[in-house]
Amino acid sequence: MSLLVIGTLAYDTVETPHARRERALGGSAVYFAAAASTFGPVRLCGVVGEDFDEVHLQELRARGVDTSGVERVPGKSFHWGGRYGEDWNSRTTLFTHLNVLEHFHPKLPPAFRDSKFVFLANAEPKVQLEALEQCPERKFVLADTMNFWIEKYLPDLQRVLRKVDGVVLNDEEARMLAGESNLIRAARKVLEMGPRYVLLKKGEHGAFLIGRDTHFSLPAYPVVEVVDPTGAGDCFAGGFMAAVAAAGNTTPGTLRRAMLYGTVTASYCVQGFSTEDIGKRTRAEVDARFAELLEITTV
Amino acid sequence: MSLLVIGTLAYDTVETPHARRERALGGSAVYFAAAASTFGPVRLCGVVGEDFDEVHLQELRARGVDTSGVERVPGKSFHWGGRYGEDWNSRTTLFTHLNVLEHFHPKLPPAFRDSKFVFLANAEPKVQLEALEQCPERKFVLADTMNFWIEKYLPDLQRVLRKVDGVVLNDEEARMLAGESNLIRAARKVLEMGPRYVLLKKGEHGAFLIGRDTHFSLPAYPVVEVVDPTGAGDCFAGGFMAAVAAAGNTTPGTLRRAMLYGTVTASYCVQGFSTEDIGKRTRAEVDARFAELLEITTV
Repeated sequence: MSLLVIGTLAYDTVETPHARRERALGGSAVYFAAAASTFGPVRLCGVVGEDFDEVHLQELRARGVDTSGVERVPGKSFHWGGRYGEDWNSRTTLFTHLNVLEHFHPKLPPAFRDSKFVFLANAEPKVQLEALEQCPERKFVLADTMNFWIEKYLPDLQRVLRKVDGVVLNDEEARMLAGESNLIRAARKVLEMGPRYVLLKKGEHGAFLIGRDTHFSLPAYPVVEVVDPTGAGDCFAGGFMAAVAAAGNTTPGTLRRAMLYGTVTASYCVQGFSTEDIGKRTRAEVDARFAELLEITTV
Repeated sequence: MSLLVIGTLAYDTVETPHARRERALGGSAVYFAAAASTFGPVRLCGVVGEDFDEVHLQELRARGVDTSGVERVPGKSFHWGGRYGEDWNSRTTLFTHLNVLEHFHPKLPPAFRDSKFVFLANAEPKVQLEALEQCPERKFVLADTMNFWIEKYLPDLQRVLRKVDGVVLNDEEARMLAGESNLIRAARKVLEMGPRYVLLKKGEHGAFLIGRDTHFSLPAYPVVEVVDPTGAGDCFAGGFMAAVAAAGNTTPGTLRRAMLYGTVTASYCVQGFSTEDIGKRTRAEVDARFAELLEITTV
């Protein structure tokens, strides 16, 4: 299905109200690949430092992830630290050590250049554009971003938005990007910037898919025990893009089912630290929860 | 369909970030009746003071609301004042003048006593119990409550919960009543207190219906222009109960469709001050938005 992700491989130090994990495996591309590999092969492009344990790449390969696009360079891997409060929707970043990420320029292996389905994980917009230029056969590209790029690099981000098919935003990012507090109006303004689809992530409150002629609203899967929300957005994107790539089309039905799959992979993600839960799930387990979510949300 | 509501008729003074309304028609029973009367006749029980304009009752009667259970007594009508911030989910109560409500004891007209479907709007639990005892033929009773009663009158509220079929709570109330921050676990704890169903209202984030063997999640209807959220919860209950009463049963399918109807009537409610929007809607308009909501939420 030639699904490609360009993003980070990282170590995360995470504090929740109930526990703490030091230097756990993380990074947008890792989470995306952990979720998407449940559906089929995934190509991964990113950079790690000398400290990145080879065992992580072995585990990804065992799940069908092609790690030949992972560059290892001198220095330390990207390291992020954050803390969650009792309200899982609020997160404090404690530190961001970019390390090897600071000088990262994606270089796709020749075998990756025919990728049809591409996820540009959260990164500096210029880096996203560099990656995009190396995918001449792309059919459907989804990009993520964050408040920092919206504030500081808006013209670059706008260039990205003109070139991608979909953008994934949380509610705060959508409001900031559109300068509009009502989420529906904000999403419509973002559509005017270029993409055909806006995927609005609202955490425990579900997600919207908004296109020029389409609107789909979906509640979250009711997770009874949240352990660590880190990576949920990337796992959402992973389930979504893998389902689209597996279908090989972007019909309204495919996109709606993909929203459910993204919701399912995100729900597994938050049940464990790092990729400990989603990284072990099988397609059968994902399909079982998909059926449950469908039951919960169908009249 | 013998649908009865016991609740308040009030004047509300409401401030939003964009406008202010002084002494607009309000009250839980008024909102409920405005929404439910779109579906069929509604019986209304409550109390008003000498200042309550007869024209409000005339307008309700014109919509098929039987106001013979509205008692007029010396004194002033219940008057509530509140302010909304930019985030519509946060509300500050500026004043609560109970006035005639302070000594209210519901007295159902004999013609109301065969009511099968009953909504006990937010009130002191003892008053809710007094009303309930006058409905010997009740088939399905839904009760509302608020943080004040949960904190101060828990034993009385628990008696109410043992006698009703469903309870409607917002997320904060559910967490407080159950002493549990996870909403799903909170709802399950509330089920153990007696009711067969918990209706969890999450405002712009939709609603859950949780029963012993059922779980239904529904996003909100995407309202583009919120004018005044006052009464949305009671309009939700009005649409829900009217749909149940019209169906005459509580099968899973009926309850799920009723959740959609409640979402629709609440969405019209917030589009105007007071009952200015929902109070003028026709069944055809409600059904059209029901179809739209179904389209938005169906895979």
